[in-house]
Amino acid sequence: MKLISDRLKNGEKPIGTFLNLGSQTAAECVAIAGMDYFIVDLEHSPFGLAEAADCIRMAKLKGISPLIRIPEISRANILKHLDVGAEGIIIPGLKTREEAEKIVEYGKYTPLGSRGFCPTRVCEFGYGDAFANGILEYTRKTNEETMLIPQCETLECLADIENIVSVEGISGIFIGPFDLSLAMGIPAQFDRPEFKEAITKVLTVCHEKNKPVFIFAPNKETARLRLEQGFDSVTVNGDLNVMTEAYMEIVKSIRA
Amino acid sequence: MKLISDRLKNGEKPIGTFLNLGSQTAAECVAIAGMDYFIVDLEHSPFGLAEAADCIRMAKLKGISPLIRIPEISRANILKHLDVGAEGIIIPGLKTREEAEKIVEYGKYTPLGSRGFCPTRVCEFGYGDAFANGILEYTRKTNEETMLIPQCETLECLADIENIVSVEGISGIFIGPFDLSLAMGIPAQFDRPEFKEAITKVLTVCHEKNKPVFIFAPNKETARLRLEQGFDSVTVNGDLNVMTEAYMEIVKSIRA
Amino acid sequence: MKLISDRLKNGEKPIGTFLNLGSQTAAECVAIAGMDYFIVDLEHSPFGLAEAADCIRMAKLKGISPLIRIPEISRANILKHLDVGAEGIIIPGLKTREEAEKIVEYGKYTPLGSRGFCPTRVCEFGYGDAFANGILEYTRKTNEETMLIPQCETLECLADIENIVSVEGISGIFIGPFDLSLAMGIPAQFDRPEFKEAITKVLTVCHEKNKPVFIFAPNKETARLRLEQGFDSVTVNGDLNVMTEAYMEIVKSIRA
Amino acid sequence: MKLISDRLKNGEKPIGTFLNLGSQTAAECVAIAGMDYFIVDLEHSPFGLAEAADCIRMAKLKGISPLIRIPEISRANILKHLDVGAEGIIIPGLKTREEAEKIVEYGKYTPLGSRGFCPTRVCEFGYGDAFANGILEYTRKTNEETMLIPQCETLECLADIENIVSVEGISGIFIGPFDLSLAMGIPAQFDRPEFKEAITKVLTVCHEKNKPVFIFAPNKETARLRLEQGFDSVTVNGDLNVMTEAYMEIVKSIRA
Amino acid sequence: MKLISDRLKNGEKPIGTFLNLGSQTAAECVAIAGMDYFIVDLEHSPFGLAEAADCIRMAKLKGISPLIRIPEISRANILKHLDVGAEGIIIPGLKTREEAEKIVEYGKYTPLGSRGFCPTRVCEFGYGDAFANGILEYTRKTNEETMLIPQCETLECLADIENIVSVEGISGIFIGPFDLSLAMGIPAQFDRPEFKEAITKVLTVCHEKNKPVFIFAPNKETARLRLEQGFDSVTVNGDLNVMTEAYMEIVKSIRA
Amino acid sequence: MKLISDRLKNGEKPIGTFLNLGSQTAAECVAIAGMDYFIVDLEHSPFGLAEAADCIRMAKLKGISPLIRIPEISRANILKHLDVGAEGIIIPGLKTREEAEKIVEYGKYTPLGSRGFCPTRVCEFGYGDAFANGILEYTRKTNEETMLIPQCETLECLADIENIVSVEGISGIFIGPFDLSLAMGIPAQFDRPEFKEAITKVLTVCHEKNKPVFIFAPNKETARLRLEQGFDSVTVNGDLNVMTEAYMEIVKSIRA
Ligand SMILES: [Mg+2]
Ligand SMILES: [Mg+2]
Ligand SMILES: [Mg+2]
Ligand SMILES: [Mg+2]
Ligand SMILES: [Mg+2]
Ligand SMILES: [Mg+2]
Repeated sequence: MKLISDRLKNGEKPIGTFLNLGSQTAAECVAIAGMDYFIVDLEHSPFGLAEAADCIRMAKLKGISPLIRIPEISRANILKHLDVGAEGIIIPGLKTREEAEKIVEYGKYTPLGSRGFCPTRVCEFGYGDAFANGILEYTRKTNEETMLIPQCETLECLADIENIVSVEGISGIFIGPFDLSLAMGIPAQFDRPEFKEAITKVLTVCHEKNKPVFIFAPNKETARLRLEQGFDSVTVNGDLNVMTEAYMEIVKSIRA
Repeated sequence: MKLISDRLKNGEKPIGTFLNLGSQTAAECVAIAGMDYFIVDLEHSPFGLAEAADCIRMAKLKGISPLIRIPEISRANILKHLDVGAEGIIIPGLKTREEAEKIVEYGKYTPLGSRGFCPTRVCEFGYGDAFANGILEYTRKTNEETMLIPQCETLECLADIENIVSVEGISGIFIGPFDLSLAMGIPAQFDRPEFKEAITKVLTVCHEKNKPVFIFAPNKETARLRLEQGFDSVTVNGDLNVMTEAYMEIVKSIRA
Repeated sequence: MKLISDRLKNGEKPIGTFLNLGSQTAAECVAIAGMDYFIVDLEHSPFGLAEAADCIRMAKLKGISPLIRIPEISRANILKHLDVGAEGIIIPGLKTREEAEKIVEYGKYTPLGSRGFCPTRVCEFGYGDAFANGILEYTRKTNEETMLIPQCETLECLADIENIVSVEGISGIFIGPFDLSLAMGIPAQFDRPEFKEAITKVLTVCHEKNKPVFIFAPNKETARLRLEQGFDSVTVNGDLNVMTEAYMEIVKSIRA
Repeated sequence: MKLISDRLKNGEKPIGTFLNLGSQTAAECVAIAGMDYFIVDLEHSPFGLAEAADCIRMAKLKGISPLIRIPEISRANILKHLDVGAEGIIIPGLKTREEAEKIVEYGKYTPLGSRGFCPTRVCEFGYGDAFANGILEYTRKTNEETMLIPQCETLECLADIENIVSVEGISGIFIGPFDLSLAMGIPAQFDRPEFKEAITKVLTVCHEKNKPVFIFAPNKETARLRLEQGFDSVTVNGDLNVMTEAYMEIVKSIRA
Repeated sequence: MKLISDRLKNGEKPIGTFLNLGSQTAAECVAIAGMDYFIVDLEHSPFGLAEAADCIRMAKLKGISPLIRIPEISRANILKHLDVGAEGIIIPGLKTREEAEKIVEYGKYTPLGSRGFCPTRVCEFGYGDAFANGILEYTRKTNEETMLIPQCETLECLADIENIVSVEGISGIFIGPFDLSLAMGIPAQFDRPEFKEAITKVLTVCHEKNKPVFIFAPNKETARLRLEQGFDSVTVNGDLNVMTEAYMEIVKSIRA
Repeated sequence: MKLISDRLKNGEKPIGTFLNLGSQTAAECVAIAGMDYFIVDLEHSPFGLAEAADCIRMAKLKGISPLIRIPEISRANILKHLDVGAEGIIIPGLKTREEAEKIVEYGKYTPLGSRGFCPTRVCEFGYGDAFANGILEYTRKTNEETMLIPQCETLECLADIENIVSVEGISGIFIGPFDLSLAMGIPAQFDRPEFKEAITKVLTVCHEKNKPVFIFAPNKETARLRLEQGFDSVTVNGDLNVMTEAYMEIVKSIRA
């Protein structure tokens, strides 16, 4: 099974989607449909760790990469989801370099950070061959593969993006266009020049540092556009939206 | 809020869908998209009463009619879902008139059947005005509104359909085309003349008895066709299928 | 801790209540308030085995006797609740002696019935001293203590009550006054002479067989009355009703 | 359906209660009994977001206002409960103005704070008409309606109450009499002059700022008294206490 | 991944264990330890379908064969567990050939039985290549692989074993030594000649019909013995027992 | 029932284990096997408060002491687990004296800290005799019994151990050997002199302050060794490891 970090290194431009239903069957369907990854959204959803863990297990069964968007920076939010097998963590609302450093402290083993060590599900509780080359090699490889990706969606983050993305251990940036535009006082006006400049700035700065940039797209048309603009990955809509919109089309078509 | 039994009496041809995710958020989205009812599928899904009860509550909140497909005929399967507010029960695999009578025994109050009585959630635990006109008026009205709908999907049911649909308290018939075709030895060959004759027979017999006929349709095109053929309601696909097929389209479109 | 079967043998007239919230904290509160037993109502509630098991554990922790009202007669409904520690099973809607015999088959070990044997939680998984005197002594004692109590609430059961209560292994009768009156065509008219005769008949017949009779009472006044009438136990109202009625009083009092 | 913020503006003196059972059926019963709001207590209860979300949905179905007492100040505790539809947040243990400002940062959209934006259940996932007048009007109106209410129950908060309640975005104050008296070294001695002075101070300061004051009352007598004293709302006891106390009365009455 | 039916056909003598904790992590550990299959015990445990489904998914993720012991014969118990991916069903307490036929009716597709058809998780909801060779080939192959295994643990089953095991679609027999010995009046006296004759009879009759025989063994010594006696598979102890016994050894050793 | 704080005061050298399955049945088995306490591990496990609360209740039912390892320092993590009955809290990853003081603020009532007060399950919701001697006596006694135990597993904590263990209200220290060795750059090399010196330092410093020291041991041999070295308590392995290792032995033995 290919990790999302491998896909990005290979320049594959993986596509994914948000999971807001909190349903592992929905996670399974997203995998069956051919997506490369999903992001379980714990920021705006009425569920938490238990549902995320279910979706992560399903991801491993079906060969899709599981990422988790946590609701806030905390040791538990980062450590526990990595310990059940998330390949990466998306962090909303980040404002400062200090916060980025905290993320690395919680999410990377020594010497990059101080992630707590325990042989959990992610390494078959230590009974498989995860430690065949020693614990240090295991923690080194895990540090390399684990993706820690702050969202750029506040004015503070946008202003300090170069400093933030330079933190060792930060893997890339995810642009949240709605909150960013709201913070800029131009809600959902994605065609405004200042918004376009903002995302171009993020793209340029990150690519200089060799770090990938993700962005959300509400539909496939925008998704294609963003890929053409040079984004490394697009997260297209979310499970409940895709379903609702498809049903709207069915109702309209039958009632017509 | 309009009941599905009212819609059918008014000749409205309500449309619905199956819920196989077992997610009340999915139920909510189906309501938001404008469907008239959903059928929580407890026959082929890995969930049960708890999830069904969640979806029923969500239906009442959003003004969509909740139906439940139970996995087998039993007092608990019928009584407990009606007690939390299902407007009707779909019963798979029925073969005999005796089974139809059992359904009525469990699902209708005396004198039609012997449904157990208790002031539950469905009548505000008795504290609202449900019993304003006495218990007998309450049980009479409930008997009138509660829909008990066996599926016609076995050879035995098809052969004895007139006898089965004549049972007092049985509200109509739901045709399960896949299992029916499988039972006939022509799996999914819905254009075969013998299959067409079979569903015409069910339609004719039921309409003579003034009882509505529902049928499943895998997509909106078939749904429109079935409505033109005279079916009283079409259940279009299911939540997980609608979502998966929409994602397949997204993946194909972006990767093209 | 005193079993309910002991209390009844001692002539103690235990009082209990129904649990319809499905909440183990509610079960705990009922124990703290001093009730002798509760009946988890799986007949009319939107929950099942998991919640019942939680309430049973809480009962054992707090020293109150746990009974379960099952939604229908089946091996699983009887066996699984006894295996987690219910002291007895209340069975609704019974009509025939054959059904009573089935209950005993599922609920009592050989030679009375054929209850499946397994060292479960109820006997510390066999690691405690439950089998100190051998398995046969264990099954004998369990048979003696386990209460199997059908409800008398159908015309058929009322007519054949002597025959039904005579089945060896049936421990007593629980009168469900609402359904019984509904079946008699006099819903909730508990002062009608034919209703009074009916419950007197059940009392007389059961006491001749030395088997206790339980009855439901919607409030404490009726409860006291029933105890004076010779009932061996009264089940007073249910958790959600007691709570709702107390809140109604609070609202009325403050708004007055 | 009337919001609690509307009731307060209208000078209605809404009454509510705590939910400590974590049961949506209990929430339903509180609504049926006629309470204006409830506060799901996540501070001292063994449950969390999932149960709170269930109770919020039930509130919306039954037309009662749902508030949540969170266990501590954090972005997730505030954002996630608002995103599923809580009308307000009660915050225990507050000590400083800085904490009050943090609450506003997490709980109000820009420009008051920086609450993350996402079309969730609270606005029909964006498919209804919530955004008919634009996103800015939506966030403005939501900011106006959302109640952020710190508890005054520490010495620090009492001393700095004027400063704290002046923070823009803080909607009012909730007095926790037990913890406040404990902090003052006079546990549960509510008749002590220094305690009376303390609550008078809070009332006076808040009313000068036109912000409502809530207080907890353990029973209906105290509730009436507090309303007479000028409190804008009283939260009367909690679901498990009301139930336990009602059962105690039943047991006493029958055993007498 | 090898199916248990393949292992048995190859004469591999697979070993397994019971799962009584109802924990998918426990299921995972049993897989990691190298067992060939597990049997989720729904007969004597306080959990049900949801936990079984979790364990089945974990089995598929870890490459171990999932079997389910159901609490009683019913359409739902058989159909729903097969639909989420159980490779076989163990049925306790069977007495008659009629019951064996019912099991086949519910557990095998036409023409052997009348199992309801639906593209569920077990075939990737129909979106994979499960139906590449048509539905009939799919149902034929599924019928061939699905194991339906009654327990021999009643006197009636023992007496009629030849007739029972001859039912087409019944895959083999599982001997439950405790209940069988209890039924014979010699509880847990497995060295009695009449008990030895009984199990020899079952072995001989089944092997004549080319159907495998499973037996439970409480420990590894007995397990080895049973394999030497010619049993095709041994189910060794259960998860909670293995754990408890290991802890007993730890406590004894440290306290010594 | 003996509290763990009593056992330690008596010099009993209690032994315990970690719970990583999150299963209350596993908790029950650990009690049955004779352990003195368990630590529900919320740091590295995919579960949380709900499962911890279940295990705590089971502990009280079976007479074993429940401790909780929280994932990070926060008011909710400490308060809520104490409110449902945990006898103590283990805190991972501690670095500074300030953090130790925060733990006391959240976990001890005034005057030591400012733990929020509410009559919860731990004191029978105030209806028992917990407050017979007044609230102040209750909070004093609870402060005395509640164990707050930071882990020593970072270089910072090791360096400042004397300062940290001196905080009033901190009950003792738990050495996490794996993370400590990882932080020292010598992962799992417990025989290195610098590692031995480190744990000797912790032992000496804590014993001078009359505070007990716990340590983790992966097996019974190491456990005995640690007790001989003067540790006050050893936490031996965890439930899922004990089970997995026992199954590995079974598989090896049968396959041999
Ligand atoms: Mg955002
Ligand atoms: Mg079908
Ligand atoms: Mg009844
Ligand atoms: Mg407080
Ligand atoms: Mg058995
Ligand atoms: Mg550690």
